[in-house]
Amino acid sequence: MQTVFHDAQRAHDPKNFLTSGVRKPNPEQPARIDALMGAVTRLGHEVVTPADHGLGPVAAIHTAEYISFLRRIHGMWSAIDGASEEVVPNIHPGRQEASYPASAVGLAGYHMADTACPISADTFGSAYWSAQTALTGADLVLGGARHAYALSRPPGHHAFSDLAGGFCFFNNSAIAAQAALAAGRRPAILDVDLHHGNGTQGIFYARGDVLTVSIHADPAGFYPFFWGHAQERGTGAGLGANLNLPLPRGTSDDGFVAGLEPGLQRVTDFGADFLVVALGLDPFEGDPLAGLGVTTPGFARIAEAIAGLGLPTLIVQEGGYLCPELGANLESFLGGFEAAHR
Amino acid sequence: MQTVFHDAQRAHDPKNFLTSGVRKPNPEQPARIDALMGAVTRLGHEVVTPADHGLGPVAAIHTAEYISFLRRIHGMWSAIDGASEEVVPNIHPGRQEASYPASAVGLAGYHMADTACPISADTFGSAYWSAQTALTGADLVLGGARHAYALSRPPGHHAFSDLAGGFCFFNNSAIAAQAALAAGRRPAILDVDLHHGNGTQGIFYARGDVLTVSIHADPAGFYPFFWGHAQERGTGAGLGANLNLPLPRGTSDDGFVAGLEPGLQRVTDFGADFLVVALGLDPFEGDPLAGLGVTTPGFARIAEAIAGLGLPTLIVQEGGYLCPELGANLESFLGGFEAAHR
Repeated sequence: MQTVFHDAQRAHDPKNFLTSGVRKPNPEQPARIDALMGAVTRLGHEVVTPADHGLGPVAAIHTAEYISFLRRIHGMWSAIDGASEEVVPNIHPGRQEASYPASAVGLAGYHMADTACPISADTFGSAYWSAQTALTGADLVLGGARHAYALSRPPGHHAFSDLAGGFCFFNNSAIAAQAALAAGRRPAILDVDLHHGNGTQGIFYARGDVLTVSIHADPAGFYPFFWGHAQERGTGAGLGANLNLPLPRGTSDDGFVAGLEPGLQRVTDFGADFLVVALGLDPFEGDPLAGLGVTTPGFARIAEAIAGLGLPTLIVQEGGYLCPELGANLESFLGGFEAAHR
Repeated sequence: MQTVFHDAQRAHDPKNFLTSGVRKPNPEQPARIDALMGAVTRLGHEVVTPADHGLGPVAAIHTAEYISFLRRIHGMWSAIDGASEEVVPNIHPGRQEASYPASAVGLAGYHMADTACPISADTFGSAYWSAQTALTGADLVLGGARHAYALSRPPGHHAFSDLAGGFCFFNNSAIAAQAALAAGRRPAILDVDLHHGNGTQGIFYARGDVLTVSIHADPAGFYPFFWGHAQERGTGAGLGANLNLPLPRGTSDDGFVAGLEPGLQRVTDFGADFLVVALGLDPFEGDPLAGLGVTTPGFARIAEAIAGLGLPTLIVQEGGYLCPELGANLESFLGGFEAAHR
């Protein structure tokens, strides 16, 4: 398997993370890259530098207004007397009819869903190359590779078309799926991260041309709270093209693999011919964002089940946080996938 | 003039206030009451304890879901391991299609617009009596008093029908106006707080039976950022029944009084026969939330201009924060109003 990665993805180094009213260190650290790269090296992957596709395929998913926001907001924020170093929102328009704001504080609240995605001077560049990594991974598979791994970081699946959230800025998996669609394929996104892929769901919610499936800890008691329930099935042309598979807290390997089954069936029934796996390693029983109970060998079982679909597959990195087993978990997933994906 | 106030409004004592990424002391302190009461005493007002109208007139403005939230959220929040003492939101659904959340963190983000309205065990009770104070003030004016002053605290004008924000929980001014409407009057709300009355605007935005006028610092660079622009004129049956009069930062007495003129004219043209003044004292040049440049004598001039409408008037306290002149500013406004309101 080939792995795609660009060193510019290291620069984004978020500090703040306000959760349940308490400020904690942000778990989405650049050191995640080293742990993941360790697995890639052990697996003997060739590491490919992404090509620069420009903003066109990014703007096919994200609004130009939002892209401008990500590019400009840190500079605007830094001009506020006494502001924090990183951009952190503190007021949001909610569901109310609202005008588009002019100031930095207003823009931050308009385009950021939560306090888990602080923006520094380095964020735009890292998010840009994280998206290019996913696009180059898509190129490899569109060009005939059976599978490829995009080490996208910062992750993407919590980012909506005009809204950052949950460590995410550009929705790398959605951007890759859209590129496959533009190349004439029929893409499905299968999200196996601990957290519901709310941004991905939101982007395609009213569309029937990209299937979105997500298996995750039940949002009744878990981030992202507002999205990921089984009754969210899409709307309009997208009705039935979104499937959520919430799992009880603590679900382990057997429960995860069994829970995945209707998702795999839906991918088949959609007639997908291009699969994007949004790969979170945080369903791991030892992940610091503790929610599910998947073991290290369990990731190989999940990978084998997905490989059984027999589809050309791009694996895009989403979550999974620093713990001693982070690299081993990726190695288990990718190794299991390669062995089973014939 | 009679003043209405209940001691239960003192208990709410918010601590947190996250602004531009930095945690600061919350300016909406119970000590504001002492400064305002000093003015009431010097003016020789009779102080009336509010009657308990129950939740009916509150629920005529706020959803039952939101009222349940305000009543229950602190208890739910306190059950989270390691959570802060006060409820402070960290994730918001934004403009995206969203399910109603089940957990405390989700509910906080769904029903709280910002980090300026932390909720403690005492918040519901104080907000309840703040609303009852406004309702009793409305009773006095509906019963024949020419004018009355409701010392409502916590304030209300940033609260939408199902959303707390900006130190506000129940929208006291809106609740009082709705009570006047229920009594057969045609009410107008004139908001002279430093900040746009976004909650009040939102509550009546699609309704033509209550006029909302707000004069405030231009939201292009000031809280509440998403609302308060001149082009926000109402919608549907409410089109034309909302008027925003944004002022440049630093506007002083002459500019404020001149800027108010189209608002007074609109109240007359609406045929209002009951006026609610949402009185913020934070347009003061020395207010800690520095935005405009009104002087202490300037408040008397503003009051005289409003009194010139000759309408039965309920004055409801909104913002205005601790500074040596806070009491003198209220004294100037109420004294000026009484002298001119014949």
